[in-house]
Amino acid sequence: MLLKKIKSEGLAHLSYIIGSEGQAAVVDPRRDCQIYLDLAQENNMDIFFILETHRNEDYVSGSRELQAMTGAKVLHGDLDFNYGERVWDGQEIRLGMLTLRAIETPGHTPESMCYSVVDNEAGPEVVAVFTGDTLLVGEAGRTDLFGPDRREILSSLQYDSLFDRLLPLGDGVIILPAHGAGSSCGNNIGSREYSTIGLERMQNHALMVGGKEEFIDLKLGEVLEKPPYFEQMERLNLEGAPLIGSLPRAFPVPSKEAWAMIETMVLLDLRSPSAYASSHIPGAISLPMDILPNYGGWVIPYGPPIILILDRSSQLDTAIRTLVRIGYDNIAGYISGGMESWHKAALPTSSFEALSIRELLERPDHGHLFYLDIRAEKEWRVGHANGARHIFVGHLEDRIDETPVDRETVILCSSGTRGSLAASLLEKHGRAPINLLGGMAGWKEAGLPIDRFSR
Amino acid sequence: MLLKKIKSEGLAHLSYIIGSEGQAAVVDPRRDCQIYLDLAQENNMDIFFILETHRNEDYVSGSRELQAMTGAKVLHGDLDFNYGERVWDGQEIRLGMLTLRAIETPGHTPESMCYSVVDNEAGPEVVAVFTGDTLLVGEAGRTDLFGPDRREILSSLQYDSLFDRLLPLGDGVIILPAHGAGSSCGNNIGSREYSTIGLERMQNHALMVGGKEEFIDLKLGEVLEKPPYFEQMERLNLEGAPLIGSLPRAFPVPSKEAWAMIETMVLLDLRSPSAYASSHIPGAISLPMDILPNYGGWVIPYGPPIILILDRSSQLDTAIRTLVRIGYDNIAGYISGGMESWHKAALPTSSFEALSIRELLERPDHGHLFYLDIRAEKEWRVGHANGARHIFVGHLEDRIDETPVDRETVILCSSGTRGSLAASLLEKHGRAPINLLGGMAGWKEAGLPIDRFSR
Amino acid sequence: MLLKKIKSEGLAHLSYIIGSEGQAAVVDPRRDCQIYLDLAQENNMDIFFILETHRNEDYVSGSRELQAMTGAKVLHGDLDFNYGERVWDGQEIRLGMLTLRAIETPGHTPESMCYSVVDNEAGPEVVAVFTGDTLLVGEAGRTDLFGPDRREILSSLQYDSLFDRLLPLGDGVIILPAHGAGSSCGNNIGSREYSTIGLERMQNHALMVGGKEEFIDLKLGEVLEKPPYFEQMERLNLEGAPLIGSLPRAFPVPSKEAWAMIETMVLLDLRSPSAYASSHIPGAISLPMDILPNYGGWVIPYGPPIILILDRSSQLDTAIRTLVRIGYDNIAGYISGGMESWHKAALPTSSFEALSIRELLERPDHGHLFYLDIRAEKEWRVGHANGARHIFVGHLEDRIDETPVDRETVILCSSGTRGSLAASLLEKHGRAPINLLGGMAGWKEAGLPIDRFSR
Amino acid sequence: MLLKKIKSEGLAHLSYIIGSEGQAAVVDPRRDCQIYLDLAQENNMDIFFILETHRNEDYVSGSRELQAMTGAKVLHGDLDFNYGERVWDGQEIRLGMLTLRAIETPGHTPESMCYSVVDNEAGPEVVAVFTGDTLLVGEAGRTDLFGPDRREILSSLQYDSLFDRLLPLGDGVIILPAHGAGSSCGNNIGSREYSTIGLERMQNHALMVGGKEEFIDLKLGEVLEKPPYFEQMERLNLEGAPLIGSLPRAFPVPSKEAWAMIETMVLLDLRSPSAYASSHIPGAISLPMDILPNYGGWVIPYGPPIILILDRSSQLDTAIRTLVRIGYDNIAGYISGGMESWHKAALPTSSFEALSIRELLERPDHGHLFYLDIRAEKEWRVGHANGARHIFVGHLEDRIDETPVDRETVILCSSGTRGSLAASLLEKHGRAPINLLGGMAGWKEAGLPIDRFSR
Repeated sequence: MLLKKIKSEGLAHLSYIIGSEGQAAVVDPRRDCQIYLDLAQENNMDIFFILETHRNEDYVSGSRELQAMTGAKVLHGDLDFNYGERVWDGQEIRLGMLTLRAIETPGHTPESMCYSVVDNEAGPEVVAVFTGDTLLVGEAGRTDLFGPDRREILSSLQYDSLFDRLLPLGDGVIILPAHGAGSSCGNNIGSREYSTIGLERMQNHALMVGGKEEFIDLKLGEVLEKPPYFEQMERLNLEGAPLIGSLPRAFPVPSKEAWAMIETMVLLDLRSPSAYASSHIPGAISLPMDILPNYGGWVIPYGPPIILILDRSSQLDTAIRTLVRIGYDNIAGYISGGMESWHKAALPTSSFEALSIRELLERPDHGHLFYLDIRAEKEWRVGHANGARHIFVGHLEDRIDETPVDRETVILCSSGTRGSLAASLLEKHGRAPINLLGGMAGWKEAGLPIDRFSR
Repeated sequence: MLLKKIKSEGLAHLSYIIGSEGQAAVVDPRRDCQIYLDLAQENNMDIFFILETHRNEDYVSGSRELQAMTGAKVLHGDLDFNYGERVWDGQEIRLGMLTLRAIETPGHTPESMCYSVVDNEAGPEVVAVFTGDTLLVGEAGRTDLFGPDRREILSSLQYDSLFDRLLPLGDGVIILPAHGAGSSCGNNIGSREYSTIGLERMQNHALMVGGKEEFIDLKLGEVLEKPPYFEQMERLNLEGAPLIGSLPRAFPVPSKEAWAMIETMVLLDLRSPSAYASSHIPGAISLPMDILPNYGGWVIPYGPPIILILDRSSQLDTAIRTLVRIGYDNIAGYISGGMESWHKAALPTSSFEALSIRELLERPDHGHLFYLDIRAEKEWRVGHANGARHIFVGHLEDRIDETPVDRETVILCSSGTRGSLAASLLEKHGRAPINLLGGMAGWKEAGLPIDRFSR
Repeated sequence: MLLKKIKSEGLAHLSYIIGSEGQAAVVDPRRDCQIYLDLAQENNMDIFFILETHRNEDYVSGSRELQAMTGAKVLHGDLDFNYGERVWDGQEIRLGMLTLRAIETPGHTPESMCYSVVDNEAGPEVVAVFTGDTLLVGEAGRTDLFGPDRREILSSLQYDSLFDRLLPLGDGVIILPAHGAGSSCGNNIGSREYSTIGLERMQNHALMVGGKEEFIDLKLGEVLEKPPYFEQMERLNLEGAPLIGSLPRAFPVPSKEAWAMIETMVLLDLRSPSAYASSHIPGAISLPMDILPNYGGWVIPYGPPIILILDRSSQLDTAIRTLVRIGYDNIAGYISGGMESWHKAALPTSSFEALSIRELLERPDHGHLFYLDIRAEKEWRVGHANGARHIFVGHLEDRIDETPVDRETVILCSSGTRGSLAASLLEKHGRAPINLLGGMAGWKEAGLPIDRFSR
Repeated sequence: MLLKKIKSEGLAHLSYIIGSEGQAAVVDPRRDCQIYLDLAQENNMDIFFILETHRNEDYVSGSRELQAMTGAKVLHGDLDFNYGERVWDGQEIRLGMLTLRAIETPGHTPESMCYSVVDNEAGPEVVAVFTGDTLLVGEAGRTDLFGPDRREILSSLQYDSLFDRLLPLGDGVIILPAHGAGSSCGNNIGSREYSTIGLERMQNHALMVGGKEEFIDLKLGEVLEKPPYFEQMERLNLEGAPLIGSLPRAFPVPSKEAWAMIETMVLLDLRSPSAYASSHIPGAISLPMDILPNYGGWVIPYGPPIILILDRSSQLDTAIRTLVRIGYDNIAGYISGGMESWHKAALPTSSFEALSIRELLERPDHGHLFYLDIRAEKEWRVGHANGARHIFVGHLEDRIDETPVDRETVILCSSGTRGSLAASLLEKHGRAPINLLGGMAGWKEAGLPIDRFSR
């Protein structure tokens, strides 16, 4: 029996290949799907089925791509997909000694499906269940994606899915969710990557409620950001994303050529916050590699060609994969020779300050600066710098008028990484940012005052 | 939280690295242990502890090696080890947000320990348990390694360990055993690599017994081979194996040089059964790569230098690792240029027939040949060729007198791989072997008669 | 300055990437051309030109493929190519600090071109020259490919190309030929991979002639085989081969399925000669990996789907690359689980003897067997087994009537590898082959008699 | 025949493995010498000889290390080495079909040897020559390493070595030098990696002199820096460097632990100039990866433990190799989590400005700053910023008093990389540096005035 989890970092997206005796299925494939073929071949298997737990909203599904490569059948829940086939509650899929059984579990989306796994070699009991975004480690998937009007009914349905369909499978059943910690698909996903129905029953706050009403209240009380690119993903995943065949190639672009075309392109600077602050191309969006998967979709427009600014060319492959996974296929190239070449070409640059907490405190005027916390609402609520304002980085451009033009703005995030993105956006709108390196971690370590729940 | 399983193929040995917030432990490390350092570094962790679940008998422990590399503390159960420290029942080991707790679980060995894991980020409940060879997927570890006298008491202790110490941890707890399917440490380990206490309670035949007596009867009824090299492993793991620093280097040996020294060396031919049958160096032991880990220890003497015969030099690294893991450090080299060079040098060779079932049946005398099944006792019992004799390959040289010198012997195993080893041993003792390619699988597929439980 | 040689093993095809200051050219690319893109990117270069030294006949040119990937301009000599542009004698191509200059050098083919390289950083002198198949290490390219009628005139032209165009470049100039030892494009190419005009002047037998007439006589006297697939290559390279985009994918085919379709497919067995002899699928062509590139084109028909039989799945990538390079794009798959699965499925197999020279001599009837040398004419002429007949393996099926049906045939090649191919062909035509492992090398080593120049 | 060049980037050190028919030699091995074993094995060869062209001064020789691994014989010229054997002029070394012949070529060092190569398969002529630092592409090795007193005599000897021993080998002979462009062992080594005696005769300024006197004048006129670590290398290479076995392991060090020990350690910051300028640990030496090999030896003291600051942990392997090659074996570890962890720990940091040329010119006071060119003397002479002062970065700490304490210093190098090192040294001595990103390349591109040959 083969069972492997394939994790896409950043999005914390988890896909799986499962199989037995030469027959395999892939659950929720990502778009760069050579890896599934490699694993199938290594294990001497053919991929016969592609199972979707739901129309994913945070990444482009690789189902059509993998289907084109393998001829496998795509199965998904009850929605008007332009590809694949509908799977029915109770429908069984046989893979060698394994039986997978589809379970309708509406809630996170109306057509969400789970798939239980019976290992006939061991016995007739369910041993594992692919839970999609219905049940995550420490969390249940968010129910707010279809707007406030449908939120209550979806929460109610999710309660039934969890309590009537999944929990009865038994405490010993291993859960195989579609997302891990760091994903936008759940409020507070645990960092442990392994769990069971039994553990979740005892440790998952969404399963420890007093009843359906308490559950619905819990879900209605969740404060979650919905990145604007989710709509693009939902549309693509319904219609079927364009086939890419293999990863797009990005070519080196000489600095002067890039400069000449700068108005028509989007520049993404993937270097570290320190390097960006010190010197960058005016207008380039700062998206350090770590936050590209989760924050790219907030700020990169779909359409115009993308030019990358890298620390080293070995980053290119990861950058392209990450962008393609969230639907940015139009990658024109990368600055040839990086910023060193740009500097040698004597082209324009910008810079702003990036300070550690110690350096900030040494500034005599540090008490008179504008402090802006750009983390998500739920992080802000847990505790924030005394006296700071809050605008989530994903909303920053829409609410730019709330930031001062006449004094410097100290940006606070957890570590300084998202702060770099925020600083690049502020600068673009004529503000004077200071990025606090080390972010709130440094703030706390330095013993500075923290507020809670205020605004 | 980091939790990774490191599987050594063949031995089906499972080791683990577990950690949190920069602090890691390795459970039951193998001897070529660079991989643990790589994983620790990738996850930005330091290895502080090395936990042994018991004095392993089927491979050389890497604990001393890894200790030398990292300075980590080695912990093990109550036995006179020449290295490391004793851990006590209930003793806690803290790794960042994790708490590991030692549990005395005698049975497989008198000093066996398990280690439960609490993920303090999620709650105070045990989430997983390192079960060593006490509880395996679908099986409990064998209890016969300390001789018939101690078998009953160890089985009784194991019952208590399983029912009083492990099962009460709860159905949802994930089990992390030290061996998987194919290992000699349990009778009938399942091929699924993931399980929980709950699943084992329902599917593990050793846990589905009516009480302690039934359990003891079950264990006393197990028929298991004990490879002779186990004693070497036990000794080494008690005293602490020699440090190797890095993998031994093997050098190419020209054919004629090898021929000149052939009396003082052990030749291991790692090529496929077909290739071996067709032409091999007289006296070379046939150990196709797949069976080297599990059968090497039955037939390779400790002491004399080993010369390898490979299909291609890319096999070398795997071959060396495999040998070192079972304590064969004295690898002198490999035949430079392989069998092609040997043939070009016009040196002596031998051959015997390797037939598919179809070819065998086409031989007019196939009804008059001697049929020898060399599989393990338990495989033989499940079903064997009508009219065949049984001698397990590991006992073949001791019982060589039971095989005929005056007629050809058709060797039966499951696929023809172990058959190649048996054939090489028969040939060495002057017999005329025929290896049946496809083994019992082909036999059954051809619709030939099968007996059960007779001899 | 970048200059890298990319060698395709087997065909001994040498291609090059050369560049300076961000601008690169590729000379004679192969069809699986991702490697040129990787090298260009690593060196921060763009590929602007693709230079062909001639319409290659032994492999499918990657020029169109690479052009599709990069937009580079393809340049070649004076022939009606369906793609690219003609380059003129004396035409200069500028790459950063380098100047490449085209030189018309008809002979090997009528439109052959060489390209000299000036490194303007160092001085105005030519430093190297891409010599295509005009000048090889120790040899000049064959001139017989356009038939006996044009052989003399091409030889004459080649003399002029060598003596009037290349030698005058100067002794210190480094030569960069399109093929190395083992290629079918020259008679006797040296095994050293580096040379200069000066060294060739002193060591290359084709350049040490007394004058044009002697040179022509030398060329007319060459005895070279022309593989039938050369015509397919010539046609493809004129028309432009189909674009492949990326390497074709091959899928695992279960043994029984393969057996059901066996009539409509070509089976290629890539295992070692020993393994093949011992047991193989009836009708499968034996093409051990080493000889696939050079002998595949002699015996594999274009058109029908190809099924591979491998030793291990890691061979797959190399096998596919090799086949695609010589125009076999229709690779249906490989036997899932290899011969072990075939044997377990109890499907038909064949076998024949493969003997070392010692074993052969031990056969009492060894003096009465039919001995067949299947090496190339020129190898045969250098020395062969006393009493043997000669039929080159590439002509064996056409001349099958010259082999006996009523007694066994001992096949002689240099090592036993091509012998395996010959044996598989003989068996297909109802003969009884014995493959001599170690071939003529073992024959000589055993001190057996050698004849020269007789037939 | 095998001939492979192994290049160690940065030092531009070239070593070689050469062999034939199973027998290989390595010329001038580096200290991390697993690569030679890998190449030998891939080519089915054993290393029998290690040839040193001279007691290298810019890196630690791997001869003893490789000898310990292989048992090969080390050969070198006439000096009191503590290991290996002396080779004599004319002595021949046989490797399969190759003959290597030792040639005494004093000059760069008194005991320099070259080794010519005859390929007996092709003919009796010399085909290539390992030239050590006697003859480089476009240059002859420096002759000033033994002080001003011996410079003239060594130059004279080198003239004889070049003109009487190497040039007579013939124009067609390929040269295989020990260093390439960027090395400190020659004044002006060409960037082309391939050359011949003939090309050098025509293009190498040292070989185009009018006679011995002109040659000596040329050599006496060379202005070259001698890094202080050369003496350490010379000593180690005479005595034999300590064996390392395998690369040292570096462990992650938590920020606070590092801070506690900071006084007793050397901190090397390997990040980019931009990242360093923006925020760094006070006292850390800036050595961006690119300049670590060539500039590390100028500024890192031998003895104290080294702690690295990395951009990403994948840099670690390269960093350790680089340091070990120049004799820094005492690598204690690297800051766990990098600068992000440091910032989160709220520990002290420093920063200074790093400006592009455009940003510099926008500063109203840019005409009043102190401009300091820290490039090598010979770069300075070719052209420098009007009004700048010159102190080579390697001498900066010795001449720190020549830099102002009361105003900012703009540092000029070629690109801004060495400038970062200089800036870190200035800061350490209480100065206020500004690193000019893009360096003199940007300066020129911006059309700013250049002076020559003044100071």
